[in-house]
Amino acid sequence: MHHCWFNGKITEANATQININDLGLMRGYGLFDYFRTYNQKPFQWDWYWERYERSAKLLKISNPITKEEAQEVVHSLIKMHGDGEVAIRFLLTGGYTFDSVTSAKPNLMIISESLHFASPKDYETGIKVISYEYVRDLPTIKSIDYKHYMILQGELKANSAADVLFHKNGEISELSRSNVFIVNGNKLITPDKNILEGITRRTVLELAKNDFEIELRSVGFQETLDAEEVFTTSTTKRVLPISKIDDKVIGNGGIGPKTQFLLDKINALVENW
Amino acid sequence: MHHCWFNGKITEANATQININDLGLMRGYGLFDYFRTYNQKPFQWDWYWERYERSAKLLKISNPITKEEAQEVVHSLIKMHGDGEVAIRFLLTGGYTFDSVTSAKPNLMIISESLHFASPKDYETGIKVISYEYVRDLPTIKSIDYKHYMILQGELKANSAADVLFHKNGEISELSRSNVFIVNGNKLITPDKNILEGITRRTVLELAKNDFEIELRSVGFQETLDAEEVFTTSTTKRVLPISKIDDKVIGNGGIGPKTQFLLDKINALVENW
Repeated sequence: MHHCWFNGKITEANATQININDLGLMRGYGLFDYFRTYNQKPFQWDWYWERYERSAKLLKISNPITKEEAQEVVHSLIKMHGDGEVAIRFLLTGGYTFDSVTSAKPNLMIISESLHFASPKDYETGIKVISYEYVRDLPTIKSIDYKHYMILQGELKANSAADVLFHKNGEISELSRSNVFIVNGNKLITPDKNILEGITRRTVLELAKNDFEIELRSVGFQETLDAEEVFTTSTTKRVLPISKIDDKVIGNGGIGPKTQFLLDKINALVENW
Repeated sequence: MHHCWFNGKITEANATQININDLGLMRGYGLFDYFRTYNQKPFQWDWYWERYERSAKLLKISNPITKEEAQEVVHSLIKMHGDGEVAIRFLLTGGYTFDSVTSAKPNLMIISESLHFASPKDYETGIKVISYEYVRDLPTIKSIDYKHYMILQGELKANSAADVLFHKNGEISELSRSNVFIVNGNKLITPDKNILEGITRRTVLELAKNDFEIELRSVGFQETLDAEEVFTTSTTKRVLPISKIDDKVIGNGGIGPKTQFLLDKINALVENW
């Protein structure tokens, strides 16, 4: 973490503190959003802002900042960071409480952070994921609730897996922090329910619309295992191939041609952002 | 809040702060436990400690303190509080992180707090609860995840309700922060699944065993509406009658004789704790 804007003041992020009676900490009552810069400009800012506002509305935490004010803070943080690219996290909690439930006003932190990437090799070989029966609670909200993913850390290591694929009642939904697509022939298919609507997912759907037949629908777990290609999308991963689900090798076991096509497309987009 | 022991140091709770990169705040990765004193002695300390340890184990956060050390901290906090009774909260999080996922060690806060009670009138008239279709995520763990209850605050106020009754697939589980019992004739019935095993629930089951036929089993939502008596149990509420669920009046609409019997029993127990 680099810097943090907290209720109006920017300080070193590692020195920024919050009182322990915050409802995020006491009651898990908080949400976030997370985006990055390309060429030092926030990528898809309008879409991220829209999603942040929607999460706040759905979780019933009043957003204390206007889009214009937030944009100014983001620009200050990018400037303070200096050269290179940076990630920005909005973290909004229910605020300070004196009875463990009520609060007079929310707490908003806007934090600049280092970017963490998948390795270049992962884009050639694809990543391994393990399956886990679960649907995120209130999945359309980017809440801070990642307890299942945190609990699974040991299992991920034991299986040399990079992430977890959530599925329930025979249908997949998403990875822990990214969306999932499958490719069959010219069809690009991705779940439309029980997911967080990723901004990279939205970008990829835009980039793919002239070259693919797009299907937004329920996607079976078995269908995913049998797909020609499977990939995941996120802010930091862009388009990253999944080559193994549990012990099942997907497609050719590396990056497939359609995944490569879409990765090239998004790389071209962000290069000139 | 009065005082807070945080990783070895006791300070004024309202001045105690935590870095914003704590996994409790960033990832909702935390748990707590909560008990109170009677006659300045912790009530059912062994049982609460056992549950705290179990939550930590299930959530895979390593507990950084022994029972003896914790007991010493609790005694110090009670002493610092001075006269009267006090509540103690253990709050254990995943700890500080620099990549949003991993952490070197957990953060433990032990906090003394004022007690918040139901009003004396509630013990005569009973409280109203509203029903809500939901089962708590990882219900046997006392995690910090109360986002559903927080979202429902407006609805509770609009319905002049004191709490929410969780039910799913026709079965009840618990209130937001307390267990629920129903009484029919000489039968005392309470759900055995999808619940946090409350210490007051356990105490009441002990106190009731010679006078009731006890059934720990699935309890239907309709069965609850039709019950002669319904009550809830928690650390601060002890045994509190529920007289209305949504618009349905329960039993005689006030405190029933069996609920009164168990309330008297627990009052006698805590008086001489």
